[in-house]
Amino acid sequence: MIKKIGIIGLGNVGEAVIRSLKDSSRLISRKASLRLEVKGVCDVRKDKKRIASKYRIPFTTKPSSLINDPDIDIIVELIGGIGPAHNIVIAALKKGKHVVTANKALLASHGKDIFSLAQAKKREVGFEASVCAAIPLIKSISKGLVGCEVKALYGILNGTTNYILDKMTKERIDFNCALAQVQNKGFAEKNPTLDIEGIDSLHKLCILSYLCFGVWPPLKKVYAEGISRISLLDILYAQELNYRIKLLAIAKKQRDKIDLRVHPTLLAAEHLFSDTSSAYNAVYLNTYPAGELLFYGEGAGGVPTSSSVISDIVSIALNEKGLLRKEEKVSLCDMRDVKMRYYMRIMALDRPGVLAKISKILSTYNISIASVTQKERDIHKFVPIVMITHEAREDDVCKALSQIDKLSVIKSPSQKIRIEDL
Amino acid sequence: MIKKIGIIGLGNVGEAVIRSLKDSSRLISRKASLRLEVKGVCDVRKDKKRIASKYRIPFTTKPSSLINDPDIDIIVELIGGIGPAHNIVIAALKKGKHVVTANKALLASHGKDIFSLAQAKKREVGFEASVCAAIPLIKSISKGLVGCEVKALYGILNGTTNYILDKMTKERIDFNCALAQVQNKGFAEKNPTLDIEGIDSLHKLCILSYLCFGVWPPLKKVYAEGISRISLLDILYAQELNYRIKLLAIAKKQRDKIDLRVHPTLLAAEHLFSDTSSAYNAVYLNTYPAGELLFYGEGAGGVPTSSSVISDIVSIALNEKGLLRKEEKVSLCDMRDVKMRYYMRIMALDRPGVLAKISKILSTYNISIASVTQKERDIHKFVPIVMITHEAREDDVCKALSQIDKLSVIKSPSQKIRIEDL
Repeated sequence: MIKKIGIIGLGNVGEAVIRSLKDSSRLISRKASLRLEVKGVCDVRKDKKRIASKYRIPFTTKPSSLINDPDIDIIVELIGGIGPAHNIVIAALKKGKHVVTANKALLASHGKDIFSLAQAKKREVGFEASVCAAIPLIKSISKGLVGCEVKALYGILNGTTNYILDKMTKERIDFNCALAQVQNKGFAEKNPTLDIEGIDSLHKLCILSYLCFGVWPPLKKVYAEGISRISLLDILYAQELNYRIKLLAIAKKQRDKIDLRVHPTLLAAEHLFSDTSSAYNAVYLNTYPAGELLFYGEGAGGVPTSSSVISDIVSIALNEKGLLRKEEKVSLCDMRDVKMRYYMRIMALDRPGVLAKISKILSTYNISIASVTQKERDIHKFVPIVMITHEAREDDVCKALSQIDKLSVIKSPSQKIRIEDL
Repeated sequence: MIKKIGIIGLGNVGEAVIRSLKDSSRLISRKASLRLEVKGVCDVRKDKKRIASKYRIPFTTKPSSLINDPDIDIIVELIGGIGPAHNIVIAALKKGKHVVTANKALLASHGKDIFSLAQAKKREVGFEASVCAAIPLIKSISKGLVGCEVKALYGILNGTTNYILDKMTKERIDFNCALAQVQNKGFAEKNPTLDIEGIDSLHKLCILSYLCFGVWPPLKKVYAEGISRISLLDILYAQELNYRIKLLAIAKKQRDKIDLRVHPTLLAAEHLFSDTSSAYNAVYLNTYPAGELLFYGEGAGGVPTSSSVISDIVSIALNEKGLLRKEEKVSLCDMRDVKMRYYMRIMALDRPGVLAKISKILSTYNISIASVTQKERDIHKFVPIVMITHEAREDDVCKALSQIDKLSVIKSPSQKIRIEDL
């Protein structure tokens, strides 16, 4: 059986997919009696033609010439971003093509409509490459764990931020310094906002929410906080307390609601997750009946990602259905009501009575302190007071800290980092 | 769509499958528009009828009455072992049924014939549950990584031995004591030979060899060594050297050959693998283009295993093909020629000249020493000398140690444990 493919977008991933398809052709033929042929490739940049020429594949700058080609069965969208990619995916589905995409931003924003259209047109949308690059997570959740209820999911879904936090921890450097180094190595974009502010993780979390719970959350309703406010001080104090700081995407089933959020998180140093190093991704699932599972692998890069694109192409070529949970009517938890333990760092003047003032405010908001340490002594300066709380309500913690920050003995703003016990 | 199932074998896994099928029926209907009905269950033990009655499912003691039932599409074999299970699987395939099995011993011994028959009959054999219980490893390798060449696989595939090694390490107790404790907790069989001698891991490794390389190795040709010879001393010395001891199943592509083996292995303590605790399983894959991947999850137990059985049933019900690599003509490495680094513990009299004698023999066999430590001083006793070698040939190491063990100053047998650098 021969299936014909059109690839739109010849960046790192696009070029790697062409090469990997060539490298794996014998393997795919031996496993699936299938031949995959790239019928054409497209990029708006004319200079990308050299890639096409290298592999002797027809090149075009017009997506429509691939979308309208009746020979092509599957359109692979690898340009990223929303505008043109959205039009391409919609046009391809309308023309009766199957679609494979690595585009998390697009799916997080328009996934609901895209999957509805695909269903109406009886076409498949493969998106294994949109979350955790090379890890076969989408197929594992949708097929391998098809009979499982996901109770909780914790993900290190963004390699760039994990790399930055890793560097800060290992080299004892501050955020800006680590970011600059990671940018120099080509592991972060020149404009790193999507990564460091947690937006990329948020996009991936929305896709996983659909897979695990059948819920497409409105992007703006999900709390997302990045790592740009994490200081070296916090990394070091966390370490002393036997924690590590990771940017986590979290999804938990809470009775009839779903708790979705992205934020820096203190994790027990012993947990396998805390060892997720540099540019790797990891996902921890708590399920029934499969129990606890951990998936770990490369989270970015054209070559690893090409593996997931190819697995989607093969599944579609073999007429396999992507098993997506039908949409469920479940509401999201209000972030203000979520209860967690907290790490707090408050910069206070080293004077008698300061801790009493802070404690009084915390108790007003029903926040109970599990441990407190004043890290330095210097009566002329603001010194850090580090606290770990018992479980407290997010809204109470925000209000208490905002009131504490107004005290004249406090150098605001205070730091809070949420703690999760996996 | 309704698919009808017959389950043969009502042990832990069988009963858990019935319950999980009931629990997940809504989920499976929402994801796959599929209804799975258990048409009948079978066990040779009549008292198992109570399980069937509890779920109002017809019960029989005769496998043939399910195999010959024209209504049943899928036979689920969960009795384990080879004899009767083999007959059941063959008879079911001959009758045109699909088969789902958790039986690693059966597949390792007769997989080749079973998959040939299935192919001839155009029927599927699902075996996700045969390796790493709840981890969707089989689907990940065959589908998620369909375009990937596996360069190396390292697996902690047996929960019982991992639990015993874990206990020895954490509680500083010897092998027999740890085994007894694990047996008391119900995590090891009364006759634990299959587990502790590495046979269970060997069975799973054979299945993975077929998946990864298209090779069914003759069971007797694969080197398998268990953990019963690992002493507490070795665990402690390994720890001092910043290693952990794990029972690993190893599969490596070496040019045109495949290196397959099961043995206790020293691993760097920092490697994620070293943290695989108690009854968990973990598999590390080095692939191209997907790079390095790690899968981690529960390695035994009826409830977790039921998840994998159900995922196979759903795949078959949806007419998905299991993607198995066609058989490749690749030969196995001869264990004697494999090169590794080694940990050696030699019990020698504490006298001048002993180390010289040992070193001389090692150098005769081209074994070069990276480090050596004499662990105690007592001129009246045999004291342990612990060595780490540079890369050496297995056969040379065996011959050198056998010659060393003949020295009058040595209390034989000496210990050797292989080292892998993941």
